[in-house]
Amino acid sequence: MSSAEPAVLAISGGVGGAKLALGLAAVLPPEALQVLVNTGDDFEHLGLHISPDIDTLLYTLSGLADPVQGWGIAGESFHTLDALERLGGEVWFRLGDRDMATHLWRSAALRAGNSLSHVTRELAQRLGVPVVIHPMSDEAVRTTVQTSEGSLPFQHYFVRERCEPAVTGFTFEGVEQARPNAAVMEALQAQRYTDIVICPSNPFVSIDPILQLPGLWQALRDAAAPVSLVSPIVAGTALKGPAAKMMSELGVPVTALGVAQHYAAQYPGLIDWFLIDASDATLAQSIGELGMQVAVTSTVMKTREDKQRLAQFALDLAER
Amino acid sequence: MSSAEPAVLAISGGVGGAKLALGLAAVLPPEALQVLVNTGDDFEHLGLHISPDIDTLLYTLSGLADPVQGWGIAGESFHTLDALERLGGEVWFRLGDRDMATHLWRSAALRAGNSLSHVTRELAQRLGVPVVIHPMSDEAVRTTVQTSEGSLPFQHYFVRERCEPAVTGFTFEGVEQARPNAAVMEALQAQRYTDIVICPSNPFVSIDPILQLPGLWQALRDAAAPVSLVSPIVAGTALKGPAAKMMSELGVPVTALGVAQHYAAQYPGLIDWFLIDASDATLAQSIGELGMQVAVTSTVMKTREDKQRLAQFALDLAER
Repeated sequence: MSSAEPAVLAISGGVGGAKLALGLAAVLPPEALQVLVNTGDDFEHLGLHISPDIDTLLYTLSGLADPVQGWGIAGESFHTLDALERLGGEVWFRLGDRDMATHLWRSAALRAGNSLSHVTRELAQRLGVPVVIHPMSDEAVRTTVQTSEGSLPFQHYFVRERCEPAVTGFTFEGVEQARPNAAVMEALQAQRYTDIVICPSNPFVSIDPILQLPGLWQALRDAAAPVSLVSPIVAGTALKGPAAKMMSELGVPVTALGVAQHYAAQYPGLIDWFLIDASDATLAQSIGELGMQVAVTSTVMKTREDKQRLAQFALDLAER
Repeated sequence: MSSAEPAVLAISGGVGGAKLALGLAAVLPPEALQVLVNTGDDFEHLGLHISPDIDTLLYTLSGLADPVQGWGIAGESFHTLDALERLGGEVWFRLGDRDMATHLWRSAALRAGNSLSHVTRELAQRLGVPVVIHPMSDEAVRTTVQTSEGSLPFQHYFVRERCEPAVTGFTFEGVEQARPNAAVMEALQAQRYTDIVICPSNPFVSIDPILQLPGLWQALRDAAAPVSLVSPIVAGTALKGPAAKMMSELGVPVTALGVAQHYAAQYPGLIDWFLIDASDATLAQSIGELGMQVAVTSTVMKTREDKQRLAQFALDLAER
């Protein structure tokens, strides 16, 4: 299908978002799915341009992903990294040998003057991924985490420091100057999306960098398509990643309600449907009072069936 | 030993030169050996700075080298290259997974503003190589091969085209502006070398780029230390690489005499001792008539003992 035809837009960070994207790709004609993905985690490392969330989506949607850890490539080896360690090089970011090829290819293509959007589309095609993956911007936006130990680039916080320093805030360097993905903005303005689904990704470091691009959240709010969001917090914990720890450190209630309050305060009127897990059903009324419709289902995605069922559930909300 | 103490200087390209360097390192206190190495084959590939001859020396002298092919690392895997091939990337240059670490480390260190000399010294130290490896210059000199199919950067000729196009000449881009290795020039001027040995490397693409650096061959000629050269052509063939094929295409006799004539014409008075294999003993008189002393021995290095014996033979010439 061409990008001018109706499509579903998923908005995603890494591992948790990629699970729902995989479910959506299975229940939709895969060409009918577009994913707008966070690039605030991108960084330059060892001279390579690394786009962790794009790669998690590419590897998940192509079937290459490591099913246990959710990122990287299944059956990966680390011979380069082991040799680099013997040289005393930087090895805190676990670059696998096969994964390395993606970074080398992307970095060369970017140096040759191609946009990140173009390079991502090429990579998807070469990996056999029919879903269109849209980087949130072709310009650099870099998430910085303010912590008790000072300001840290995202990957330093996330990987090198294993999310240990207490978080006090976030900045997205370059976000005010960056233009949101042009194809997504055009499709929003042309009302080409039938559904917009915000995946259960970290609100602070996966979704906020996307929504704070100039004009983007307003364009999502103003689209005719309903915007649904799957809570990344279930029963007071994050299924993956540091979201719960961050909320606790920021003094935000570590609940789906805390997530809903964040979105209601930052992006008023954006969320039409807020999906919570059945274990959080008692929060439905309070979330509803924030002006969102609440849908309750099982949001934990362990199996392929879980992913597809949740994806279908989210899409069906648009019919209500 | 500090670099201010007496030392032997070997001048080398890749595989053939590294064999003799390994022999020299074994018969000398290893700190008493310095190797001045060709960097005309260096190139940028996939965003990496690759120094093939330096790496062949590093891997040979550290014991990491693949003993069969003479370059690269023993037991190497190629997972990155295989994945890059699936992406449609450039894979004609066989970058192994462990070798990749060297290129990543070097490239990062160069980007950080370090000189190639400094970076090479660091790499040698980290790989446990006590020999000092001096890049011929910290500035870029790039060997270009003129062929029947046009002008080719060296690695394109050597690896991608497997030396197939007929050679008509060579240029060393940047050689006039490049400064020869400062430490070697200083040691030459201070008469700190006791022996200078030109290894059995390709005269046209391994040794010429070094000797054509401004002032270098004259400084070697003017040093008190005798300069000996081991013929890379034995019984009309090159033991490794395209030297014989090149000589044939250039209309030069494919013999040790042809090699001697090249040096006599290009660098008059440079070579004190010309070492030929016993199988070429009949050429001794003609080579002697070029104004060089000729020494005849077995120059084929198959075993460790061969390498050490030839190294000791070359060093003993200085006593004569």
